[in-house]
Amino acid sequence: MTRTLYDLCGRDERLRFSPYCWRVRMALAHKKLEFDTIAWRFEDKEALAFADYDKVPVLCDNEQIITDSFEIMRYLDKAYPESPVLGEGVDYQRALFFKYFVERSVTPGLFRIVALDLLDAIHPDDRDYFRKTREARFGMPLAEVHNPEQGRQQLTQALAPVRDQLRSSPFIDGEAPSGADYLLFGSMMWAHTVSLEPLAEPNDPVDEWFKRMLTVHGGVAGNALTIRDLS
Amino acid sequence: MTRTLYDLCGRDERLRFSPYCWRVRMALAHKKLEFDTIAWRFEDKEALAFADYDKVPVLCDNEQIITDSFEIMRYLDKAYPESPVLGEGVDYQRALFFKYFVERSVTPGLFRIVALDLLDAIHPDDRDYFRKTREARFGMPLAEVHNPEQGRQQLTQALAPVRDQLRSSPFIDGEAPSGADYLLFGSMMWAHTVSLEPLAEPNDPVDEWFKRMLTVHGGVAGNALTIRDLS
Repeated sequence: MTRTLYDLCGRDERLRFSPYCWRVRMALAHKKLEFDTIAWRFEDKEALAFADYDKVPVLCDNEQIITDSFEIMRYLDKAYPESPVLGEGVDYQRALFFKYFVERSVTPGLFRIVALDLLDAIHPDDRDYFRKTREARFGMPLAEVHNPEQGRQQLTQALAPVRDQLRSSPFIDGEAPSGADYLLFGSMMWAHTVSLEPLAEPNDPVDEWFKRMLTVHGGVAGNALTIRDLS
Repeated sequence: MTRTLYDLCGRDERLRFSPYCWRVRMALAHKKLEFDTIAWRFEDKEALAFADYDKVPVLCDNEQIITDSFEIMRYLDKAYPESPVLGEGVDYQRALFFKYFVERSVTPGLFRIVALDLLDAIHPDDRDYFRKTREARFGMPLAEVHNPEQGRQQLTQALAPVRDQLRSSPFIDGEAPSGADYLLFGSMMWAHTVSLEPLAEPNDPVDEWFKRMLTVHGGVAGNALTIRDLS
């Protein structure tokens, strides 16, 4: 019985910040599934050739090879139906919407807050690749994308519905964290791992929630190495 | 057996545009529940005194009096559990998030597109009340809030995750419309009822979805009177 997650690493091999990998790590923890990780870097396309894929996360679950974070979450619900993370039917549809909400409305603001910190957290050999692909995506130099103040304004506005939600329950999905929590948490953990920039005001319900998420499932996220632990 | 919905009306009593009332009308249609409406106007607080409430929708379902559109949807799921609109547990939580998404991220853009058209659609006796309350909320004159071009930009961006969602299913909630569809539809129907302004590009999946929503449940929304029918 082996379960292995290919997981993006940074300049220190223990620095793991991919938002997509964090989704999966939290989903695995939610289902109490043990796993090993293999540290992977952007340029290491060869290592994923077996999966016919060029990005992480890739999960190897015994004979199964599954790529794409959301597909992995879906796979985990099918293979291990107890404690679903996405759910089925309408439940699944609403999780899918939440995924798009995180990627379209939240992540761009986060990226503007941490762009240069992220570059610095990445392995030196990966930085050219990262800079080129991200500058092409944004159509401007990374140094211009990086604008923590504007990013924070964008983020505060994008998170308004999450803030409302967290006024009536400790987690987005209710009394306990589930798929929607992991989808948003993945992106915020990404920013938190590579940067010291604050992401929300101290008394913001989103900040309280983020701290709560760091402690769930035995503190799997809270115990992870961040740039705070590196000199 | 009587079921009555207090429903906001405009300068023509048949013009029904409240986004919150439309949510409920669609939820009632979803559950195939017959109902009558009572036309109500903003200033008519007396008429709702029996409900200890000052806004519509108010639903009277035999002996039950329920206020607030989302509470009414919730009530309908409890009283008529077949074909849930919000669902329970995580399902419900994700619908609640979607409600906040619509109200916080989508409605402000829509309001900027139709503000003055909305004023014009309202009963003349209600316009002072409407102008005062809305100008206080936005902190600027209605004529400044009204900016269809900026509103459309805001809306296009806010709807990005909905657009992604509708690329893989005909409705937000999947193969058939349900709670999330009604929550967004209510707001778009509000703008569509009072204004000729386009809300999305003709080949936008959101536009296709909106047209589809006008036809569901026997065309209950598509057959409703809009300002297109008034001279």
